[in-house]
Amino acid sequence: MGSLGFNANKIYKAAEILKECKKDKCKLFFGFAGAMVPAGMKQIVVDMINDGTIDVLVSTGANLTHDLIEALGNHHYMGNANINDSELHKQNIDRIYDVFMKSDVYQDLEEFFNKNFDKFKDKKTVKEFLWEIGKLVNKEDSILTACYKKKIPLFVPAITDSGIGLMIWNHLVQGKKVEMNEFEDLKEILDIAFVEKKKAIFYVGGGVPKNYIQQAMQFSSPASYGIQITTDRADFGGSSGAELKEGISWGKMSEKGKFVNVNCDATIALPLIYASYKN
Amino acid sequence: MGSLGFNANKIYKAAEILKECKKDKCKLFFGFAGAMVPAGMKQIVVDMINDGTIDVLVSTGANLTHDLIEALGNHHYMGNANINDSELHKQNIDRIYDVFMKSDVYQDLEEFFNKNFDKFKDKKTVKEFLWEIGKLVNKEDSILTACYKKKIPLFVPAITDSGIGLMIWNHLVQGKKVEMNEFEDLKEILDIAFVEKKKAIFYVGGGVPKNYIQQAMQFSSPASYGIQITTDRADFGGSSGAELKEGISWGKMSEKGKFVNVNCDATIALPLIYASYKN
Amino acid sequence: MGSLGFNANKIYKAAEILKECKKDKCKLFFGFAGAMVPAGMKQIVVDMINDGTIDVLVSTGANLTHDLIEALGNHHYMGNANINDSELHKQNIDRIYDVFMKSDVYQDLEEFFNKNFDKFKDKKTVKEFLWEIGKLVNKEDSILTACYKKKIPLFVPAITDSGIGLMIWNHLVQGKKVEMNEFEDLKEILDIAFVEKKKAIFYVGGGVPKNYIQQAMQFSSPASYGIQITTDRADFGGSSGAELKEGISWGKMSEKGKFVNVNCDATIALPLIYASYKN
Amino acid sequence: MGSLGFNANKIYKAAEILKECKKDKCKLFFGFAGAMVPAGMKQIVVDMINDGTIDVLVSTGANLTHDLIEALGNHHYMGNANINDSELHKQNIDRIYDVFMKSDVYQDLEEFFNKNFDKFKDKKTVKEFLWEIGKLVNKEDSILTACYKKKIPLFVPAITDSGIGLMIWNHLVQGKKVEMNEFEDLKEILDIAFVEKKKAIFYVGGGVPKNYIQQAMQFSSPASYGIQITTDRADFGGSSGAELKEGISWGKMSEKGKFVNVNCDATIALPLIYASYKN
Repeated sequence: MGSLGFNANKIYKAAEILKECKKDKCKLFFGFAGAMVPAGMKQIVVDMINDGTIDVLVSTGANLTHDLIEALGNHHYMGNANINDSELHKQNIDRIYDVFMKSDVYQDLEEFFNKNFDKFKDKKTVKEFLWEIGKLVNKEDSILTACYKKKIPLFVPAITDSGIGLMIWNHLVQGKKVEMNEFEDLKEILDIAFVEKKKAIFYVGGGVPKNYIQQAMQFSSPASYGIQITTDRADFGGSSGAELKEGISWGKMSEKGKFVNVNCDATIALPLIYASYKN
Repeated sequence: MGSLGFNANKIYKAAEILKECKKDKCKLFFGFAGAMVPAGMKQIVVDMINDGTIDVLVSTGANLTHDLIEALGNHHYMGNANINDSELHKQNIDRIYDVFMKSDVYQDLEEFFNKNFDKFKDKKTVKEFLWEIGKLVNKEDSILTACYKKKIPLFVPAITDSGIGLMIWNHLVQGKKVEMNEFEDLKEILDIAFVEKKKAIFYVGGGVPKNYIQQAMQFSSPASYGIQITTDRADFGGSSGAELKEGISWGKMSEKGKFVNVNCDATIALPLIYASYKN
Repeated sequence: MGSLGFNANKIYKAAEILKECKKDKCKLFFGFAGAMVPAGMKQIVVDMINDGTIDVLVSTGANLTHDLIEALGNHHYMGNANINDSELHKQNIDRIYDVFMKSDVYQDLEEFFNKNFDKFKDKKTVKEFLWEIGKLVNKEDSILTACYKKKIPLFVPAITDSGIGLMIWNHLVQGKKVEMNEFEDLKEILDIAFVEKKKAIFYVGGGVPKNYIQQAMQFSSPASYGIQITTDRADFGGSSGAELKEGISWGKMSEKGKFVNVNCDATIALPLIYASYKN
Repeated sequence: MGSLGFNANKIYKAAEILKECKKDKCKLFFGFAGAMVPAGMKQIVVDMINDGTIDVLVSTGANLTHDLIEALGNHHYMGNANINDSELHKQNIDRIYDVFMKSDVYQDLEEFFNKNFDKFKDKKTVKEFLWEIGKLVNKEDSILTACYKKKIPLFVPAITDSGIGLMIWNHLVQGKKVEMNEFEDLKEILDIAFVEKKKAIFYVGGGVPKNYIQQAMQFSSPASYGIQITTDRADFGGSSGAELKEGISWGKMSEKGKFVNVNCDATIALPLIYASYKN
């Protein structure tokens, strides 16, 4: 794809940057947003954890909730986006564009948290809590398990904004307590960002995962390599669509860094970039 | 605009839905994402709080950080998107697309938190903490102050992902403690969502604010009216671009509800919808 | 809107550029693509012709076909985009996103061309042919009539790609002939582009109208002012999404020119820009 | 990709539809818009012509102009989108996003047309004219040559909107004449559309090529299969972004047809779909 123009060329460049940053022993901070696990991107992230591509993972709570749902034996199904949602609701099917999920997955989640809540309550960080889940489900194809086994720092800055967060809420309203506090995780990612001198970022989507990594760079030292797969746009002004070079002004990105913005659905771009990187 | 097609018509519909939902005494949950305060959307949100349009506000931490920055006497400036970011960095200017901000705003933030940290440490929720900031800065044109004065529940599910969060971190690394915990806020928004029987949602952008409100509907009862201003798209599968009717399948939206998705930069669409609603 | 960021600011800039270019006595070449007449943008273009804003008009054939359809007494209706298209087909309704049109408008078109074909056959250019239609229908609110009356050069470089073109085809298959030839129109727009020394361009959408004006600038002299309303994007590489400044490399745009790209549905942006220009 | 969601799944579906329509002996009408030849998509289209995938080709004039430019021995180069366009202009480099072309390609074009003009002047259709060019350049990797050799009907409904068109203009202003007339081409594509009973459509981009094929279906009989690669969107209302199912209401698409809209840069999607189809 190196001889092609437009976004095909960006995919080529992204793979080249990934090769170079890993050859350069950079620590890769990977931001993971969008409904990527329901869409089938779980295995690729597990592979990227296991082969050392990803060093730090920041995710939406939703992606890990869906990872847990699959680890508990449930599935996401290819469905249809042009469908009557009232009809789906009657059939207890939750729709994520063209992917379907049975709503009774929440019963399995509840059961899992009922059974294991005591193991979570003393966890001081969301990371420790999530690692514990990964340890408990112990599935080779789970992102949570892969992070636990490889001791990959895993941050979810909005855990209360997820199915997992709601499972905890379910116990809190019964008067139970949890100790985990997002500020402890914030301390940890900033400690990592301070210690690591060679850093790279890779964003699948924007949202909180991107911004959380960006601010960690801003308050420590700038990243030298950057890949961003997003369909959002710079001129709408939000962080999700901001070009990586904008981060130079903030001190989030190095002015000598190498960056690429790929504008493409990540379900297409991520496998292409990773396959090209591995070859 | 009611006689026009395409997104002009959607703006008209959004204003009509807003009129109808407020006439119907619905409680409006307003999700506020994207760099809207830097872009100049602060006053319109203050107005919407003060005139009773917004009943519950869920925001990114960034929007409130920028609100606080302005409340402390700093400004956002019209800049230029086609510019050398290295040059800006040397001049200590942070760029948000075509908006500029001096990076020394962080000194004022630090000073504010140094001076007032003791007032924050016992707050049990992020909401109470943010209200306290709003009380302290006490500026008529501040979203934080408006929420405090009108006792509008204000939720920021990823407070650690913001400049305000980093100010707290700055004190935590010095060994201080804070009590606020996002799970307490989660309990509160769900309590509100359970109590209110007539609910409407209005999303500026997607991200955590949208998803956090959506899950509150899912775990309480569905919303009857919905407006969404977003430039993201359903077929990329993420929550930010999902059409509101998709929420019917999840029980987040009522199957008899009235919804509209406006695809337009919110700096254009929000003022148009609000002006049309008020007239 | 001058104090706002992002695309709200671009709308402000577009109006300022329009003011400046008309004050500077530039000739404005207006490219008109997208289903703008069905969406209700006809009157604004008629106004822009009548008040001297538009000096040269390049349009898709479809916009003028729909102008003619309305001039013949037919209408476009606000419909619904979420609808069964098979059902619409049975009811003889043609859908243009959320706008409906009865398919029997084609009978009126046929009748019009049957009645008037003799007046068209000797026309040497598509422009003369279209002016003749404008003269015949003679409706104050018709773009075709406005161009005829104001002697605005009107180019449709793909007239065969339109309902009007198909009406001509209908007579050609009966053995009749027409003399009009697109190459004669090409000569004319290039003559105009050569003679005019101060030029501005204004594109609603991209497609053939934009590219046709761009190449006229390239082969004569560059334009000094430029406004573009498009939702297409530069990185996909096509002409429709290309930033205006790219035209500097080609000699289509002056390197000292003033340009703005507004990313917004034109049904929203065009009325805002024009209203701001007139005030 | 069949087990993935979102646009990855659409790529899978597109390949499946292509397999099925060719197995079903459908005639494939291929619309080719966007700067696809500069981006490196020429060979794939040549392959699709030579292996019988494409039965009728409708293109922008620009794609064939760039095909001719390459056939005459010139090249497109990988450049850079973040660059000073004034500087490029001084260096006689024309930019197409991140692709560069020397502006002296126009001298070779002129020379070619000077040398061969007499062979073109009697051609009655644009198709015959373009076939003649393909015959003259006689390059195995040229789209023009491939169409000529395989006798693939090739339509360019806006030939005057292209570099090739401007080369003809160059001779017309010297008093020469050409006989080709777009209405003759219109008759031909409609004849084909009438005769063929099993039809499929495949659009790379929108614009005139899509609309021209769509109207041919409307005025003959609907297509049974459809693939569309576009980054434009339905709610902006234009033909380029319209979902294929909208065509059912117009009688352009069969209500029992199989359609897919792929939202992705065609430089990525087209090779993936074609590779999957061939395997």
